[in-house]
Amino acid sequence: MRATTIHAPGDIRVEEVPDPTITKPTDAIIKVTAGCICGSDLWPYRGFNDITPGDTIGHECVGIVEEVGAEVTDFKPGDFVIVPFDHCDNTCAHCRNGMQAGCVNLGFTMSGQAEYALVTQANGSMVKTDAMPDAGLVPSLLALSDVMATGWHAAVSAGVKPGSTAVVVGDGAVGLCGVLAAAQMGAERVIAMSRHESRQDIARQFGATHIVAERGKEGAARIAEITDGIGADAVLECVGTDQAIKTAFAVARPGATVGFVGVPHDVELPVRKMFQQNIGLAGGMAPVRKYLPELLERTLSGAINPGLVFDLTLPLDESPEGYRAMDERRAIKVLLQP
Amino acid sequence: MRATTIHAPGDIRVEEVPDPTITKPTDAIIKVTAGCICGSDLWPYRGFNDITPGDTIGHECVGIVEEVGAEVTDFKPGDFVIVPFDHCDNTCAHCRNGMQAGCVNLGFTMSGQAEYALVTQANGSMVKTDAMPDAGLVPSLLALSDVMATGWHAAVSAGVKPGSTAVVVGDGAVGLCGVLAAAQMGAERVIAMSRHESRQDIARQFGATHIVAERGKEGAARIAEITDGIGADAVLECVGTDQAIKTAFAVARPGATVGFVGVPHDVELPVRKMFQQNIGLAGGMAPVRKYLPELLERTLSGAINPGLVFDLTLPLDESPEGYRAMDERRAIKVLLQP
Repeated sequence: MRATTIHAPGDIRVEEVPDPTITKPTDAIIKVTAGCICGSDLWPYRGFNDITPGDTIGHECVGIVEEVGAEVTDFKPGDFVIVPFDHCDNTCAHCRNGMQAGCVNLGFTMSGQAEYALVTQANGSMVKTDAMPDAGLVPSLLALSDVMATGWHAAVSAGVKPGSTAVVVGDGAVGLCGVLAAAQMGAERVIAMSRHESRQDIARQFGATHIVAERGKEGAARIAEITDGIGADAVLECVGTDQAIKTAFAVARPGATVGFVGVPHDVELPVRKMFQQNIGLAGGMAPVRKYLPELLERTLSGAINPGLVFDLTLPLDESPEGYRAMDERRAIKVLLQP
Repeated sequence: MRATTIHAPGDIRVEEVPDPTITKPTDAIIKVTAGCICGSDLWPYRGFNDITPGDTIGHECVGIVEEVGAEVTDFKPGDFVIVPFDHCDNTCAHCRNGMQAGCVNLGFTMSGQAEYALVTQANGSMVKTDAMPDAGLVPSLLALSDVMATGWHAAVSAGVKPGSTAVVVGDGAVGLCGVLAAAQMGAERVIAMSRHESRQDIARQFGATHIVAERGKEGAARIAEITDGIGADAVLECVGTDQAIKTAFAVARPGATVGFVGVPHDVELPVRKMFQQNIGLAGGMAPVRKYLPELLERTLSGAINPGLVFDLTLPLDESPEGYRAMDERRAIKVLLQP
């Protein structure tokens, strides 16, 4: 099959690789309808994560079931499915506790930017639509495989409540989905920190009530002003850098929680400040499967339209250009069509 | 008045110091009925915190109102009061948000191990009993000024729920009160980590269902065994050292929360583990006033008896011996009678 591969930092290719095959009775093979590039794919692209040259890359996709293992009873070839980037059996103790991202049979989509993808624990992981969705819905359904569920997890982890004030640090696709999540959960004030006009526009469409373009100390000062010096009840940290974490804790009120979903890189947590001001930290890798039924319902009803985060659609063969566009922040998020 | 003072690490004295005086209309002066020594007093005693030689020390007390400022309307001389170690106005935005430890008018008891103590923000901070309590109740009431409220805060921060499994790291007085709190909140399994028989006994009286005497990796292995390999739903970290924090995260299940109330010293938080396993951290300095009404009710009804943590009672003049006894772990917690 044709698949996106990474050979070195900055070296993304689309080439022929072996098709994935079913090796366990719980596996399924999906023919990818749409995949996409994640902000976290930029870490290896930029040389911050180790890679094995030639590995396939990409962990987000939706598609049509091509083949299932003997124990996959809930799906059949032809079903349209949303594939969480993190696969789970949805039956182990951690899954039953609502933390599918800690499943004892955890797996990951390894070729979301390709023609086919293998799903381990297919019964537990996937969610299907009743019918083949309209093409116009596909971007929003694709967003549920990671970015929207991750933004949702940030808001859940931060404890966003009706009437509360939420601040979202990061205006990437996850941050924008965090804005959408906080607004859906009834936050009265949703403050998006963003310097980019196109991202600010989407943030407003997603329900941001305030935009703060300033960063660092100036940004924190603006948020103090907006919150009458109190600070935010809930902060969604959607980047993963030390600077973003520092900003998140700087804008939180005493007793607030920072929900973090940006994979942390060289982050040092301000433990003394956390203790002195009782600011909690929760979150991590999103338990996508947990949120999928609710997010699918909201998407199908038109309550949310997370597909708006895709501002560039390319054929699979142009994956390398997709990475460049995201790396240079010319695109928020790139959808790839095999 | 006679007061406990600190002059250098290990150098505790009881000497004559000026009586506290009312300087603001929101102040009150309390004649101390009982004070005590806190685990956190051992940090300066052991040379880990800076001190000003000759400063009074001690932040926990109960007593009788001696004098009130012009704006102290809810209390009058003769009232028996519990004095939270952290004073608050109980009216500012942070207090209304339930985080009295972040009050904009935050103050602290500075001479709890003395004949008299000054309470700033007396109206907001103190809670009185309807009548003069029996002498036998005084230790438990004294425990509410810090140690019991702090153990309670650990359990609240860790999200202890009915039917859950809680682990308490630390068998000091705060840890023991954490055991009591978790049991009161309906945890089905309360696992106390303790190597000391006298502390294990109190832990059992407070509701511990399991005692784990092993520490570090062995302790974590024992807890994995008890929890069928799943880990704890809620972990109460009641020490503040890096070792205790590491243990706390090691025994938490994916999706759990560590509630920390031990003042952190040289702690490095395991941010990657927190992210990968979705283990949150919450807590800090306890908002004592928030919990006082409920804890007072439970104490007066006999539902809790936190005064059990005092296993040594000394006259105020023997404060130095009290510090030595706690430093050498000969005593769990020392009550001082002026």
